[in-house]
Formats: sequence, C-alpha cells, structure tokens
Amino acid sequence: MNNLFINPAKEQWPQIIQRPSFDSKPLEATVSAILEDVKLNGDTAVKKYALQFDKADLIELKVSQAEIAEGIASVSEGLKAAIKIAKDNITTFHQSQKEETGKIETAPGVVCWRKSVAIQKVGLYIPGGTAPLFSTLLMLGIPAVQAGCKEIIVCTPCSRNGTVNPVVLYVADLIGLKNIYKIGGVQAIAAMAYGTASVPQAYKIFGPGNQYITCAKQLINKEGIAIDIPAGPSEVAVYADESCNPSFVAADLLSQAEHGADSQVLLVASTTSVIEKVTAAVEEQLKALPRKEMAKAALKNSNYVVMQLADDAFELLNEYAAEHLIIASDNAVAFADKVVNAGSVFLGHYSPESVGDYAAGTNHTLPTNGYAKAYSGVSLDSFVKKITFQQLNKEGIKNIGNAVEQMAAAEGLDAHKNAVSIRLENL
Amino acid sequence: MNNLFINPAKEQWPQIIQRPSFDSKPLEATVSAILEDVKLNGDTAVKKYALQFDKADLIELKVSQAEIAEGIASVSEGLKAAIKIAKDNITTFHQSQKEETGKIETAPGVVCWRKSVAIQKVGLYIPGGTAPLFSTLLMLGIPAVQAGCKEIIVCTPCSRNGTVNPVVLYVADLIGLKNIYKIGGVQAIAAMAYGTASVPQAYKIFGPGNQYITCAKQLINKEGIAIDIPAGPSEVAVYADESCNPSFVAADLLSQAEHGADSQVLLVASTTSVIEKVTAAVEEQLKALPRKEMAKAALKNSNYVVMQLADDAFELLNEYAAEHLIIASDNAVAFADKVVNAGSVFLGHYSPESVGDYAAGTNHTLPTNGYAKAYSGVSLDSFVKKITFQQLNKEGIKNIGNAVEQMAAAEGLDAHKNAVSIRLENL
Repeated sequence: MNNLFINPAKEQWPQIIQRPSFDSKPLEATVSAILEDVKLNGDTAVKKYALQFDKADLIELKVSQAEIAEGIASVSEGLKAAIKIAKDNITTFHQSQKEETGKIETAPGVVCWRKSVAIQKVGLYIPGGTAPLFSTLLMLGIPAVQAGCKEIIVCTPCSRNGTVNPVVLYVADLIGLKNIYKIGGVQAIAAMAYGTASVPQAYKIFGPGNQYITCAKQLINKEGIAIDIPAGPSEVAVYADESCNPSFVAADLLSQAEHGADSQVLLVASTTSVIEKVTAAVEEQLKALPRKEMAKAALKNSNYVVMQLADDAFELLNEYAAEHLIIASDNAVAFADKVVNAGSVFLGHYSPESVGDYAAGTNHTLPTNGYAKAYSGVSLDSFVKKITFQQLNKEGIKNIGNAVEQMAAAEGLDAHKNAVSIRLENL
Repeated sequence: MNNLFINPAKEQWPQIIQRPSFDSKPLEATVSAILEDVKLNGDTAVKKYALQFDKADLIELKVSQAEIAEGIASVSEGLKAAIKIAKDNITTFHQSQKEETGKIETAPGVVCWRKSVAIQKVGLYIPGGTAPLFSTLLMLGIPAVQAGCKEIIVCTPCSRNGTVNPVVLYVADLIGLKNIYKIGGVQAIAAMAYGTASVPQAYKIFGPGNQYITCAKQLINKEGIAIDIPAGPSEVAVYADESCNPSFVAADLLSQAEHGADSQVLLVASTTSVIEKVTAAVEEQLKALPRKEMAKAALKNSNYVVMQLADDAFELLNEYAAEHLIIASDNAVAFADKVVNAGSVFLGHYSPESVGDYAAGTNHTLPTNGYAKAYSGVSLDSFVKKITFQQLNKEGIKNIGNAVEQMAAAEGLDAHKNAVSIRLENL
C-alpha cells in the first residue's frame, strides 16, 4: 500500500519529502479574468459569479442582523460550549504574543524603538463546501480582534438559497465581527482586494481555500496586497518510536488523510515493528471511517520510513518541514530540540493534531508544502506591522553624525550627507 | 514647480498619495527566461549572463579569501571606523528584538509555546552600480547572523574586471560572512532560489534592486521561495509645522530625491509659510548638489500640501503610508501617536532620514509604495520563523478533548474526532 523506506540514503530523501505538485499556471487566465471583472464591475460582477458558481441569486451581499440571530439560535448549546472553550484557549495563547519592545538607546542621545500597530483593514476568507470551517474563523478572527484591526471583513460562500453556515455566524458574533459577506470563491478574494460598493477593501487577506482561491491570493499578492501564507494541501509527519501507542499514531495519520486525496502523511519510525503495528491499526480504524475512500486515496501519497537513529530521523523531518509534526514518544520533549523546520509540533502521546486544529490555543493556519523552512504560521504578529521610530537629540547627532557623513559620502549620496552636515553646523 | 494643495478635500487625496506606477508584466517574459535558464544550466548560465550584462568573463563565481583581504586593505581607516559605529548600533537595536515567549498553560494540562528558530539558509542581494550599497549588507547581514542562520549567501555584481566593491567585502568580513558571490541581476536571484554547483540554495531572499530584480523576486516568491518585502521606489513624507527648521526639512527632502527620478517626496505642512520657506531652502541647496538633475526630476513627482489641522495631516499621512516619515516639529513625540501606517518614523529636528539609513540602529529595508499598511520593515523577525508547540498530558486531553470531539463532528471530520476519542477511551 504505502511506500516503505528502510534507513534510506540521502539520495532517496528528495523522493520521500516530495509533495504532490500542483501548478496554478493553467488556472491563472480564468482567475485573472474574474479578478479583473470584479475590479471593474464591483458588486454586479460578484453577484454574477454567485449565480454562476454557487447558483445563488443574491440581492444583498451582506449578512443581515436577522440572519445572524437566526443562525445563532440554530446552533446547539453543546457546540456553543465547545466553541467557547476553544475561544478561551486561543485567546489566552495569542494574547501572550503581544509584544512590548522598549526604547533602546543605541548610542548616547540616539533612541530607537518599535511599535506594533494593527493592520487597519483585514479580510478573512472562510471556505464553505462540504465541511464549513468555522474553526478557521476562530483562528483568524480572534487574533484580528486582539491586534485591534479597525475593519475586519469576513467572506464565506452561501448555499443556493442564500444562507450562510449558522456556526460561522455564531462564531462571528461570539468574537465580535459584524461584517460578514455571502461571497465565496475568487470573487470573494477580488472583492476584498479591490473593494466594491458593498465590501470594503482590505490591506491583507487571510484564509484557506481550493486551488482557485490559492491562485487568486497569489495574483493579488503580486499586486501588493498582503496575504497570510502561501497555501498547499494539508499534511502531517509523525515520528514514532517503540514507546508509542500504535492506535494513537494510526488515528493521527487518518485524521490528516481525511482532509482530501491530495493531503499527505509521512511516518518516520525507529523500527520496522512500529510501522507494522501502526499499519495494522490503520487498516482496523479505516473500516469504521465515513470518509474512508478519501483517506485511502491520501494514504497512497504517503511514505513510511524506518530510521534507526533519531538524529537521522529528525534530519529527514527537518528537510520535509511538515505543517504538523507529531512526536509520539516518551522522549518527545528532548526530540523537540532537534526540530528546526515545522509549522506546529505536537509532543507526546496525548497531543493529537486535532487538539491544535481546534482548541489547544495554538493557531491552525500553518505553512504547508515545505514552506515551514521560511514561513511561520498565523499568529498575532500576522495582524500587526511593526513601525520603527528613532529620536536623536543634539548629543545623538553629534555622536553618530560623522559616521553617517562618511558612509553617505562613500555611497556617493551627497544629499544624505548634507542632511546631517547642515544639522551639525547648526549645533 | 511642485504640486501644491491647500487643505485638500478627501476627493483629492488619491491624487496626492498616488505613487509613480510601474508594471512589471512586460519584464516577466525576459526575467522568466533567465530564471529558467539558471534553473536548468546553473553556473554555466550564470556566467553567460555575467558576460552578457556585466561584461565580466568569470572563471570563479565565489570571491576568494585573497580578494577579500585585498578589499579590506583598500578601505580607509576613517570609513572602517564609521562602519563599526553603525554596526554596533544596528547590533544593539536588533539584539533587543530577540523574543522569548514563555510556555502558556491555556487550560490545565494544556501547555503551548512558540520558539523562534532561524531560517537555516538565506540569500542576500546587494546591488552594485553607481552607488554600491554596503550599508544594505550591514542591514541584512547583521540580523541574519544574530538570528543564527546557518548558511548566509551574499550575491553582488562585479565590475568588468571581476572585482567586487571593496567596502562590501570589508562589511562582509566584519560581520562574519564568508560566502560572497560575484553575481548580479536576475541571474543572482535565480542562483539563490534554485541553487547551482557554486551557489547554495536559499529558503528566503532579501535585498533591493532595480525593476528586473523586483520582478525576479516576485516570480520566485510565487514559486514558494520567501522574500523580504515587496519593493518599490524609495520615498519620504515630511510633516513640518512652524517650529521646524526649513533648511533641515529641505535637506531631508533632497536626500530622498537624490535616490533617483522615480523616488518620491511628500511635504505636509501646517501653513503656507512653512512651504514657502522650505521651497526657498530647497532651491538654495539644490545649487550645491552634485546629483541635482536627478533630484530635480524626483521633485517633479512630489506634492506639497498645507493641512491646517494636525489630525487631517496625519490622516492623509496614514493614507500615504510612507516608507520614511519625518516629523519636523517640537511636538514630534505627541504627533507620533497618530501614526498608524509608516515604515520608519524620524522624530524631531535632529533625526534626519539618513541617520536611519546608516547608523541609528534601525533597519533601512522598509516597505515602500504604501505597503507599510500591511508590511513591516526588515528586522530580526525576518530571519526567523516561529514554530508552535503543544503538549497535553492526560489531564489536558480530559479537559479539552470533548470540545475537540464536538467541533470536529460539527465540521464533518470524523477521523479528527476519533484521534481524540481513542485517547479518551484509553485513559
């Protein structure tokens, strides 16, 4: 079933860590045309595509207060209580990311500092479809509110009769978001990027989506609008040794695989016996799974690797740079020190990926496709920019003015030099 | 000479804040072809373009130890001393950006934290040409070393005889960088993005450059390689009131304008009289400036605005979102609180932009073209990614497990639910 590698040589590693590739180039013409249409024709174009793609004939794009109230009423109390627990934990963890950088006197009379200021206008895209991801609205909306973003817009697709998933509306209300639009697909990204009569323009756009959404975000990013992180299919890597519980590991692999046929699973184990036990448990658990066909397809893309030495295992895992990395071992904390590339790491036997997906407090919007080598997941940082300040007094310019003059002259920038000279002469 | 606006109505603001536009689309075919060639043919292609564009016939791409030693010897002691002052201040300020996020117990038994880990491989591009920007190597190299990046590559163009600017070599040596390559232009970005036999591959590429470099960085970014920030022509906005020194303000405007005909200057003043005094000082200072033609051309793109009310002035300045914002006023510190969009802010009469460009300690790689609405300048953060960790014990999964089960079920993700259930059953 899966590809099994035993202590693979480094030449084999590229094959093991390769992701299912996807080239968005063929979509670009289609996506560009929709972007351009919405840029020129605003709401009219948005409504046209809602009718064309979602079969929804919309008069108002914005979700009304009455619709929100109706949505809230239809969510069960049990689910509301669960969501509140998640909200509290996400709030606590992201609140801890607030940063106070003090003023630094780099030289006498030269004071520098940074100030975190909210990105004033942000857009959050929440996909609909088979599994409406209200959890993503928690993960994006909570830090946006905490950061102090002044205008937070949410776009999410509606059904044919123009209704939006009620749990999404409940979450929006719970965290204090008022501007929800019934817009999905490329037209949602376009509306937030360019603004329309109904939808305010955003400076940064967040949220997952299918290949069309990904392509649209790439294209508007190239035009200068910021995006959260580049996207790709979801994935998990698990490191498991003899101390693992094979049933737990199997459940974790399957929870990733059910995301879709293109999601990917990598199991690195210390022995062949661990792989055998996990494989048996996967077969057993698959039987009971409603989405088993999808999970089976995803498992076909997956690799099982035996790495006798933990150092080799983590070298491989760092090359892979997993979105989610589970370390199923009694020594998880010690192994964690070896991790240099990963989105989020789950330590020990009681930290399945799904706790991070929903309620542990960490963010589930994470770098896929090896992007963890250079990108972080979404955090409070994603909703602020840091402005630097510098304030020199007369002593300060006296102290560093001459250095600036010399360097400016050496770079051939005389007016730069002069801006200092004219002040030094004036002292 | 310049466009003067007196208390302009909001309808006029878009005209005032508009940047000289540049569309990289027409360059894409040329740039893509070079990227592709280097991807396929590595060093051979790099050398071909060095010959074609830089007229340099290179055997070795890497700068040798002997060349570095020769470069160091040729830099004057005065300039070396100035650079050391800059290095110390940049080091001090960026060191203060190191972040220790402690472990947070979001719920009993649920511990979450973030760890900043260096991006392992980074590439720094240092443009050559008329004014070799060794200061940019300080600004990029110092935080790269501080962050702990394992592999730091520098690419910079060479002259026809194959030599690299000696001050660039001195700076590289001073901050401990060993891997300098004589490669400029699009082929440098390509070499770092894809790797060649000589040049190691980087996960993130930093550095300014002309429109071809900008286009190359956009294209490789779309392929998933991270870049520092989107680029555009340099710019300054100055707010000046009656307390300003008009000669200082004039010098600051000119120091920006000398960057090139496409760089932009915006002066917002509290009275017409301030504008008149500054304009007279600009005329006076222009006479003595070697790059005066360039500065004059840049000033043609610039706007002078009178805003009677400071609140209106800063609302306009926030809409502009300047790369550099100078507040030339006795009340600079109070006005600074009104700033929500800017790259770097210079407060008071003795903080010209050039101190930040070289030696105050702040970074000079900043968001231009209004990108400051969503992007920060380069900092220590730019060289790390933050990995999240979560560790639950039995108590932790007991506390939040049921919430996760409910949310996963509501999103239709049964295997996600099962990864928790199987653990709860095992307790």
